[in-house]
Amino acid sequence: MAVYTEVGDEELEAFVAEYDLGTVLSCKGIAEGVENTNYLIHTSVGSYILTLYEKRVAAADLPFFLGLMEHLAGKGIPCPTPVHGRDGQALRRLCGRPAAIVTFLDGMWPRRIRTEHCAGVGAALARLHVAGQDFAISRRNALTVDSWRPLLAASAARAGEVQQGLAAVLGEELDFLETNWPVELPSGICHADLFPDNVFFVGDKLSGLIDFYFACNDFFAYDLAVCLNAWCFERDRSFNITKARAMLSAYRQIRPFSDAELAALPLLARGCALRFLLTRLYDWLNTPAGALVKRKDPLEYLAILQFHQAVAGPGAYGLE
Amino acid sequence: MAVYTEVGDEELEAFVAEYDLGTVLSCKGIAEGVENTNYLIHTSVGSYILTLYEKRVAAADLPFFLGLMEHLAGKGIPCPTPVHGRDGQALRRLCGRPAAIVTFLDGMWPRRIRTEHCAGVGAALARLHVAGQDFAISRRNALTVDSWRPLLAASAARAGEVQQGLAAVLGEELDFLETNWPVELPSGICHADLFPDNVFFVGDKLSGLIDFYFACNDFFAYDLAVCLNAWCFERDRSFNITKARAMLSAYRQIRPFSDAELAALPLLARGCALRFLLTRLYDWLNTPAGALVKRKDPLEYLAILQFHQAVAGPGAYGLE
Repeated sequence: MAVYTEVGDEELEAFVAEYDLGTVLSCKGIAEGVENTNYLIHTSVGSYILTLYEKRVAAADLPFFLGLMEHLAGKGIPCPTPVHGRDGQALRRLCGRPAAIVTFLDGMWPRRIRTEHCAGVGAALARLHVAGQDFAISRRNALTVDSWRPLLAASAARAGEVQQGLAAVLGEELDFLETNWPVELPSGICHADLFPDNVFFVGDKLSGLIDFYFACNDFFAYDLAVCLNAWCFERDRSFNITKARAMLSAYRQIRPFSDAELAALPLLARGCALRFLLTRLYDWLNTPAGALVKRKDPLEYLAILQFHQAVAGPGAYGLE
Repeated sequence: MAVYTEVGDEELEAFVAEYDLGTVLSCKGIAEGVENTNYLIHTSVGSYILTLYEKRVAAADLPFFLGLMEHLAGKGIPCPTPVHGRDGQALRRLCGRPAAIVTFLDGMWPRRIRTEHCAGVGAALARLHVAGQDFAISRRNALTVDSWRPLLAASAARAGEVQQGLAAVLGEELDFLETNWPVELPSGICHADLFPDNVFFVGDKLSGLIDFYFACNDFFAYDLAVCLNAWCFERDRSFNITKARAMLSAYRQIRPFSDAELAALPLLARGCALRFLLTRLYDWLNTPAGALVKRKDPLEYLAILQFHQAVAGPGAYGLE
């Protein structure tokens, strides 16, 4: 939520002159994206987002992220499209950082989630999964099951500051997940972070998917579990089965589930809850007070984890 | 440089529905303005700035600021124009704060000041002074000579942390200024904070003046001294007489100086240097480390003060 790198007017004009985007009319640093610096620029041709990639995004991954957005946009997924310079390059450097210009997407992310939003997200995620199937590059998920043990170890000693006995609870869950994690399920390109603030709507119509900087190859049903957790729990931490049913039904109209995927959904939802719990816990314990980034409550995801631990099967998510 | 108040999509849609601005297409919090929260919004009609006034702006002053921008814009000054709702009101409330929508201005503020910029600012300031003459409301300058003694008192005890002996130097200067400050000079509406980040250019052409939240009634020549100090000193703190000549000449082609104004210019420039030195000193000593707002170096203005203390007369600014 910050502008980490300030780009001057002359640097920007010289940078944009490498593209066929006309002349720069304005440039505003925007409070969007936790990891990178983003500017909304108006040129004589249109509106664009200029992103400067700060340290937390690995430069080696950028061709994957930008190539993926371009691939998906080419298949009609409403995601930002990287703009190529006159030399053909989409990934350039500005102010000592890797930088790219992408198309601007209309829309706002919904603060109060309605069932229509969940249906829209389910359908868009299925389309994304289908569209990604012939993307040539792959990237392993750096935050899947094999990363959770070291992540827990990094926070275990201080986890009790957040809730007494938390480390033991998480350790037990991790034992279970490591033993039972599926080895083979339909997989491919996943967004892996499709939270409400990464999905834009104009009215009830989904208009944009953004922030592909956690995208990776993993089980499709895991990506769906991310959305289930992010969109279908209310603020009081109760599960809204109507929203879940709308999301899953919309998804499977476009990409039908296999029996194995359906059966694995509660387990994947537990794993996904643990994954966000662990990164939030780490950030909670390691973000200095007064930092630019707002910390997110790890215990929200403990409640979600406990919900999925208790379900009898995928029917609990509203599927017949 | 921060979004202090987050406005949700539904709150925004309801707010914009009070205007004839079409439907909201997007809304981005922008890192602009130290005092307020600003959003750049795109609607089906155009681009606008939505400002939520945070605590540091007195609500009682808002009718003056908004009325002034509307008055000046009506006279052709390129400043933001407040947009009226269908009920005729420009000043409304949003998220518990006073809020207004103004027109969006193209342009970027210049990081590397060139003589052409200084000439543009001089001319624009003179036009602003002329255009403000029949504005009906007035507002006293809360940061002129009579406010400096209490401001110094608030920092004196710790001023030595910034530079040894600073409080004594400032006290002596203040004695001099209080004794010699003019009582009568041509006066009227002043911007009073026309620093480079408040002036937009597209190419070499001045396209916008923003941030009228220090505007007040004061000596016109004092407002010019603010610009002289803000635009005509180089980063090494040397004075660029070519830039000053360009600024003052452009100004007086539109609004000629009286002899008294010319004679007072060195004194006003000293006073203006002290004013920014004192507020920067206060902020320097009272801004917590890690705050969202970047502190500005008070000693930059000590160098400017010392330059003006040493000049023989207004000829030092490039005027014959």
